Order: sequence, then C-alpha cells, then structure tokens
Amino acid sequence: MIQVAVLGYGTVGSGVVEVIERNKELVNKKSGQELNVKYILDLWDFPGDPYEHKVIHDFEVIVSDPEVKIVCEVMGGVGAAYAFTKRALSAGKSVCTSNKELVAAHGPELLALARENHCHYLFEASVGGGIPIIRPLNDCLTAERIETITGILNGTTNYILSKMENEGADFAAVLKKAQEKGYAEQNPEADVEGYDACRKIAILSSLMLGKHVDYSKIYTEGITKITAQDFALAGKMGMSIKLLAMSKEVGEGKAMAMVSPCLISREHPLHMVNGVFNAVFVRGNMLGDSMFYGRGAGKLPTASAVVGDVIECARTQGKSNICFWDAKEADLVSIDEISRRFFVRVSDAGESQAKELFGDLEPVRADGAEGFAFLTEQLTEKAFAEKYAQLGEYALGRIRVED
Amino acid sequence: MIQVAVLGYGTVGSGVVEVIERNKELVNKKSGQELNVKYILDLWDFPGDPYEHKVIHDFEVIVSDPEVKIVCEVMGGVGAAYAFTKRALSAGKSVCTSNKELVAAHGPELLALARENHCHYLFEASVGGGIPIIRPLNDCLTAERIETITGILNGTTNYILSKMENEGADFAAVLKKAQEKGYAEQNPEADVEGYDACRKIAILSSLMLGKHVDYSKIYTEGITKITAQDFALAGKMGMSIKLLAMSKEVGEGKAMAMVSPCLISREHPLHMVNGVFNAVFVRGNMLGDSMFYGRGAGKLPTASAVVGDVIECARTQGKSNICFWDAKEADLVSIDEISRRFFVRVSDAGESQAKELFGDLEPVRADGAEGFAFLTEQLTEKAFAEKYAQLGEYALGRIRVED
Repeated sequence: MIQVAVLGYGTVGSGVVEVIERNKELVNKKSGQELNVKYILDLWDFPGDPYEHKVIHDFEVIVSDPEVKIVCEVMGGVGAAYAFTKRALSAGKSVCTSNKELVAAHGPELLALARENHCHYLFEASVGGGIPIIRPLNDCLTAERIETITGILNGTTNYILSKMENEGADFAAVLKKAQEKGYAEQNPEADVEGYDACRKIAILSSLMLGKHVDYSKIYTEGITKITAQDFALAGKMGMSIKLLAMSKEVGEGKAMAMVSPCLISREHPLHMVNGVFNAVFVRGNMLGDSMFYGRGAGKLPTASAVVGDVIECARTQGKSNICFWDAKEADLVSIDEISRRFFVRVSDAGESQAKELFGDLEPVRADGAEGFAFLTEQLTEKAFAEKYAQLGEYALGRIRVED
Repeated sequence: MIQVAVLGYGTVGSGVVEVIERNKELVNKKSGQELNVKYILDLWDFPGDPYEHKVIHDFEVIVSDPEVKIVCEVMGGVGAAYAFTKRALSAGKSVCTSNKELVAAHGPELLALARENHCHYLFEASVGGGIPIIRPLNDCLTAERIETITGILNGTTNYILSKMENEGADFAAVLKKAQEKGYAEQNPEADVEGYDACRKIAILSSLMLGKHVDYSKIYTEGITKITAQDFALAGKMGMSIKLLAMSKEVGEGKAMAMVSPCLISREHPLHMVNGVFNAVFVRGNMLGDSMFYGRGAGKLPTASAVVGDVIECARTQGKSNICFWDAKEADLVSIDEISRRFFVRVSDAGESQAKELFGDLEPVRADGAEGFAFLTEQLTEKAFAEKYAQLGEYALGRIRVED
C-alpha cells in the first residue's frame, strides 16, 4: 500500500480524493498496488465530510511520516505551497501538482530537487486541466523539434468569448453572468487579463525549449477590450476571436512568446474549441500539426490528471521523471519584430486615412458595428503600431490575427 | 551508444532513419545517449542510398548481435514480422512498431514475451500515426474509466470523404484521383472497406478494456456506398459524414465496437477533422470529453512516433512497458441491441410508407438528390433494420448517426 497526502482540500483537493475513491479498483490496478489517502492538509476542519478524520493542520505530520510516499500539492500559490513542496521533495516524497504559478516560477529548481532525492515532481494538471499535454511533450513527442505551441489555455476567458460570439453580447454583461454562475471569479483579473494563460504558456515554452522561460517577460494582453462589434465584424470575415497563448522557437533556445486575443479562421483547428474547453496546438518538424483537446479546468478533470501523476509515481518509486527544463533562462525575443496580420477597426471618417496608411484594404461592415474593419498585410508589430498610431482618433481598435 | 536495427526500408523505415538523422542532437539528448542505426533489414539493395552500407538481408545477423538493443519493426504484415518480433523479444531486444495488423492480432502475446524478457514492446505508431494516443491511454489517463473511444483512424477514407463533401463529387471519381496522387493504394480495399480502421479500433478497445478485442468480430462497414447525394442531404441537416471507428464500454469487460460511416453534427469535435488528418475522441468518467488530433499516416509523422518509442526504450533499458491488455478475450456485444438515430433516404413515392414506418418525420430535400432524407428517432439496429427492410424498393440508402 502507498500512502498519499493531499495538501489543500479545495476544489481540486476534494476532487483528488473523489477520483481515488470512485475509481478505486482501476486506480489500484494501474498503480500496481493500493493507494490510500492518509492525510488531507487544510487550514479548516470539515465537519460532516466523509474524510473529516483525515484532515490535519500540521504539515510536519506529513513530512515526518515515512509511510507517506506521494504528496499532492493542490493548494495553489507560491508561499506555503513552495515551502511544503521543497520539504516534501527533500524528504524523498514525490510531489504531484496542479499549481501552475509554482511550476512556472520554480519548476527547474523543484525538478532538480526531485532528481537529487530520487523522487518525482509531476505537474500534468498545471496546464490544460485534464488534457494530457505535459507528458505527451516530455515523453511522447521526444523525436520532434517542437516549432510552435499555440493554446487556448484558460477556460473562463474562452467561455466568455464563446458567449459573446454566440449571443452578440458585450464583455461586461457576459462576465457578470459568468460570475453569477461561478464560471468566473469575483476578482476575474487573473483570467481576463491573461495572467493565468501566461503562466501556462511559460511552462509549455520551457518544455519546448528545454530552458526556463520567465513568465514575467511574456507579453500579455487580456480580453477586456474585445467587444460584440469586434465579433460581428470578425464573423463577417469568417473568423472567430480567441485568447491565444503562443510560443514559437525562433532559433536555438530562443523564442517568441505572447498571450493575446487573436482572430482565427474557421479552418484553424483551434476554431472549434468553445466554452470551457481548452486545447493545445503543437507543430513539430516531423509530425506537422497536432492538437490536444479537452476540459482545461474543473474539479474532476484536473483531479484526474493529478491522480494520473500519482499512479506514475506509484509505478516508478525511487525514480525521477525525465524533464528537460534547465534553470538557464531562455532568450525571449521582443515581439516588435514579429510579423503578422492585424484586424483594424476604423471610423467611417477615417477610411481615406486608413487606405493611405495600409494600402488597398477591403473594408468590412456589419449591422450595429461602428465604422468598418479590415485585415492588414503581414507587418511587424512595430511597423503596425506606428501606422495604427497615425490613425489617431479614427482608430476604434485592433486585434492580432493568427494565421 | 545504443545500436538500433530497422526491419523494412519502405516508407516508414526510411522515415525512421531520417528522423534519427535529422533530429540527431535532440534525439540523443532525449535518449540520454547516442542512438545509431546499425542495420537496415530489407529484401532489396538500395544502391546509391546514403545508408546502403547498412542494408542487410539476413535477420540472423541482427538477432545474434548483442550490441543491438532496439529493433524497429516497420515491415508490416503478420508473417515474417511476427516471427522476427518474437525472436527479437526473446533475445531481450525491445521492439517498436507501426504494424497495426500484428499488434491487433498478437498484442497480448508479444507484450507478455517482452515482460518475460525485460524489454519493451511499444506500438505508438500503430494507431493514429504521429498522434500520441497509445501512451496517453496507457500512461496518462490512468485514473480514468474510459467509457467511449471514437476515432477517425484512416487518413485515406477521411481524405476521400472530405473531397466528396467539398467538391460534391462521387466516391468512384474521388478514389480514382486519390489513387493517381498516391493518397490511396491501387488496391484500396483495406482502407475503403474499413479494415484498417478496424485493426486500429481493436487495439484501442483492447487498451480501454484491458482485455483482448478480436478484430475479426468487430462489425465493419466501409464507405463505398456513400454518395454525393448523401453529402448534399446531410449538409442540409448541418451534418457531415465520416468513417468512424467506435468502441463503448457497456459493462465490466464488455464492449460494443464497430466501424461505420456516420453522420456527425457540426458541434461534434470530430466534425473539423478533414483531409488526411486523424483524431481520437476519448470520453472518461472523470475527464469527460477529450480529443487527440494530428497526422494519422505519412512517412515522417509515423516515423516520429516510432522514434519516440525508441527513445523510451533507450531511457528505460531493462524495463518493460506497463500495458494492461490481457490475452483473455473481451466480450463484444452484438450491435443489434445498440440504439442510435439513422439517416434514411427514400424515393418521393415512398413518403407515405416512410411516415407509416417511422412516424412524424421531417423530409429534407437537396438539389440534384433523388427523393428525400430524414433522421429517425433512437432505434436499435435490429428494430431499424426491420423497418428499413419494409421500405422495399423505396429505400435509397441509410447511414448511422453518431450523436
């Protein structure tokens, strides 16, 4: 029997206990032995909960119990979670986590610590919830040079954008409804400003490059400025608007990474990813295009990924997972020199000015949408920004295009 | 350094050599040591080929060379490939394969032989070409009870159906063009009759159930009867037609499995899988819906998956892969009792007869399509077949619907 401790009895933590219990027979079979949750660490008590007798408040009990071989860190944050993870790994206990902030901030250090102590630091659930993406990148696509990773990595923003598109509603109205339904946090900043997606693309970029990508250096733009009018105009062009987290290798250990709303055409595989679903689109130099799709959040999908990692630890006790993610920082190039097309909205009065700046454009109009929109030719971010600034008061908005 | 032998220097075999060569640095890094192709076994010589000096004709050289630790069996078939695989595994050499026929026919025996000899039998490339699906099922979704697997597993038929849909062309015309372009074999039976997809869903079903699914017992229907008129009518209903390979757990170790053309709606994630792309849609009891998408065939994508397996063998020499696939045969239920909707085409003269048999139906007509089409309510296969037979000469065709 392998004893497991769960740190944090919130949504994911209770999901971990539920998955182990509900799929007990199968989980034990796959683990090669019985898994048992011995401790649940939380600040609170849970009177009446079927597992209330397992709830403790002192991490020392867990770290000093030699029976505990696997720790699920599903607390979140980079404070206690970081300290507890280091102590658990130092004690030779494998750690499985859904904590993207911690993985993004301290991944290489924690992986190295796991290796030193012959245990695992696994984080499948940190990106894409229940979608297998970390292990496919680390263990399956090993013969590939990964050229680009493009993800819809945040379920809340994808839900909001899908609703805006389907209902013709504006951002604020949809956000409010999403908050009422519990699909968005009361403080939605981490989601709607792209910070959550930024942590996740930092993790994927690090795995792509084998070097550490500092999330604080990733250009990140949220969805708060996207309007119903943008969707109406994009729709006329046969396109949708998604919050994309993108990373592209542009040379040995060098990458472009950014989080930004983008127009994508109906032909792009990510176009069909709607509602709370997430997907990661991966282009390799041998494989070409591939995509991994599923539920990027939610109690049971995320917990399922954590328990999958627990099973991996149980199967390979005394080993460390192979993960190429050096502490050495990757070179992120400025986005200024990146070329792409742009979707621009201009007031009707600005049409001649826009044509002077952007050449022979095709104006697209939609009912209820102010002015008109067009797509530029390929331009660098810098060149585009200069032209766009010259539109002055005629400019009504701009969104990147992902081709 | 690890020495590798490649059995069969055809499309996939030459791809394996190319991937190892072109991504050499990365492949060696991921393997933890240098990989070298020491032998290429083929019946033919390849004068002028850069690797002609590695080509040999005698398998005994490979099996008796203690330096060779990993064998890539990319010959295909169940004759020599079966014999060579058994001999290699018996000699403790890991085998990585793209050979779906052999895996489907003898998977459990070969996995057991690998375990006995402390080596691997890996077959990521046997299903879905370059798409990671075998390892995600075996190693990632381990905490899930997989409920259904629905795949577009054959690139040739998907290419043909996509062309028929986009061009309004009939099967025979599109097949002829596909043959001219080399996208379809001169003898296309294995693809267009669904036999290839059948082997692949047998493998996935076996992994889902942990028991052996005999592919010869899977109901298999090809795409040769699908017409341009079917697409026109399905399009009017907002649906497409795909060749689906389906497997559904219907009780402990029991499953329904079949290969059949099906109508699917625009909302289904598999709807966007066009051309030569493949995808595997997996529903788990915790995860819900997920999908794995990519190139299901082709030299380099398939070879990339084989080399990914080679890297896994290099990393874990002396170990055997964990794969729950007992020799014990799974119980496949008859499709007679499976319920679904059906798309039915009837001549105009048969409208009242159809309404008598199928109730209050909504006839759909399309330009150039004879008669009309409608969707039935949920019916068992058996009940539907009885009603359909009663349409007699009014019946113009029927296709299953996957909801």
